[in-house]
Amino acid sequence: MRVIVLGSGGTIPTQTRNLPSFALKRDGELLLFDCGEGTQLQLMGAKLGFGPLERICISHLHGDHVTGIPGLLMTLGQSNREKPLTIHGPPGIDTFIQSIMKNLSIHLHYQVHVAEIEKGLVHNNSHYRIESVPADHNIFTLAYAFIEAERPGRFDVTKARELGVPPGPLYRALQEGKDVRSGDGRIVRSSDIVGPPRPGRKVVYALDTRPCSAVVELARGADVLIHDAMFTEELQAEANERGHSTARQAAEIAQQAVVGQLILAHISPRYETAKELLDEALSIFTETRVGEDSMGVEIPVHK
Amino acid sequence: MRVIVLGSGGTIPTQTRNLPSFALKRDGELLLFDCGEGTQLQLMGAKLGFGPLERICISHLHGDHVTGIPGLLMTLGQSNREKPLTIHGPPGIDTFIQSIMKNLSIHLHYQVHVAEIEKGLVHNNSHYRIESVPADHNIFTLAYAFIEAERPGRFDVTKARELGVPPGPLYRALQEGKDVRSGDGRIVRSSDIVGPPRPGRKVVYALDTRPCSAVVELARGADVLIHDAMFTEELQAEANERGHSTARQAAEIAQQAVVGQLILAHISPRYETAKELLDEALSIFTETRVGEDSMGVEIPVHK
Repeated sequence: MRVIVLGSGGTIPTQTRNLPSFALKRDGELLLFDCGEGTQLQLMGAKLGFGPLERICISHLHGDHVTGIPGLLMTLGQSNREKPLTIHGPPGIDTFIQSIMKNLSIHLHYQVHVAEIEKGLVHNNSHYRIESVPADHNIFTLAYAFIEAERPGRFDVTKARELGVPPGPLYRALQEGKDVRSGDGRIVRSSDIVGPPRPGRKVVYALDTRPCSAVVELARGADVLIHDAMFTEELQAEANERGHSTARQAAEIAQQAVVGQLILAHISPRYETAKELLDEALSIFTETRVGEDSMGVEIPVHK
Repeated sequence: MRVIVLGSGGTIPTQTRNLPSFALKRDGELLLFDCGEGTQLQLMGAKLGFGPLERICISHLHGDHVTGIPGLLMTLGQSNREKPLTIHGPPGIDTFIQSIMKNLSIHLHYQVHVAEIEKGLVHNNSHYRIESVPADHNIFTLAYAFIEAERPGRFDVTKARELGVPPGPLYRALQEGKDVRSGDGRIVRSSDIVGPPRPGRKVVYALDTRPCSAVVELARGADVLIHDAMFTEELQAEANERGHSTARQAAEIAQQAVVGQLILAHISPRYETAKELLDEALSIFTETRVGEDSMGVEIPVHK
């Protein structure tokens, strides 16, 4: 599983920071958080392909987060795509998309499902679920958590062999939590062979937002938190007024939520280098990096 | 006066060819033809500035020609711009723009005038006029001609001196077409001193279109013709079906219209290099070049 930064900027694109979009690649499936202008080109540059794209989670209806949607839909329409695409987002996203489709006479040969949500469970399948909470921006904004399903516990092959369980169906039964009878007639408990379930990985996306407790709760224990860090502390008043966070505030959220690592995002175009932002965050939370366009972050499974 | 290619591609952007947009810079004023996704970033890259932007001429309501408008409007809204921006385009452009403004709650502190037109005079001031004709695409599409006002004829200072006219108000009178009396009482005719008016420069923009006589008439004598050349002749049937031209057809239009030079545009993403397109066009019309992103074409005044 890997997070790929497609657009680390915000408000206005620059030559080095495109408008917000973050890709999550997992087992051949691709998901996007936000889709600012230029996202389709960034996706091509990252060589992720368009085929694996399953769903897009939109945080809010500010232009810099959504204006890449129409172009991406049209480009997908130039391929032989048949499977549907799902777009999750706040109330209003459906009207935004449908009116562009109508006004530009866009007719696609694949289905676009637009699912409006206000909070809670966004999607659930056997591999992962997506949850959301309202963040704290100037308009209604969602933060998202992508949470993998638990993996079964570690199977102790050595111990199974010692206890006389032959490989095959009995292994599967033990893995599924059933106790079995070994070759010599002894009962072997699943819990003797199979460890506790291993938690899935978790990625949380929280742009654009002031520091808020709902995001801390959503992000608790996440492997990766992608958080708004538009300004340094020097501009805290401006960040607050515009519904954003400072790098220090992002780091405090990461610390409170005890996440694995923090990626600073929605970097203001005023910063030519992000060193100030990074230094500020590092003083609070050491596992911080600044999102840079095209950067990939591998997220290893929990052993 | 200079044409700057912001996006030489079409349909789908690539790493080297952005979606259609061409800038025209003249006397500190900037005008755009079309505004595909990514145009604001291309404009920044070209270092043309946003301040001089006066008007945008949109050819038609296909997504690859208009999806850069919302982002550009919002970015202009981040500056201290006070003067209005005018967007000319076919019927439907106003609804397209207004519905996005409404759905994304975009409130700008400068005015956006959207002027829908079907053909004829688009704009006229003392420096230039813009004319339009319907082109031949799969939906209603406009081709545009930017035509500078005539410049007064050349003033023959040597001859004026020989005829005894002193510099000053009499020079101005002669330049304005009035006959004057020289120092020794002789009548000096304006036509003896001032040559015939010199034609202004002319740039014609014709994307997306099949070859059509209306564009030939519009482009007659133009200094620069920017014309659709999506495919080579090998794909003429596809070009025709999709409402586009081949490079050869673009060159034939340039030849018929007796233009100064031809810029091939809306290059299909299928061509990694445009050599085939160029060779095909050059065999018909030698003053051809392929539009390449960020390329600038100077257009000298007529002497």
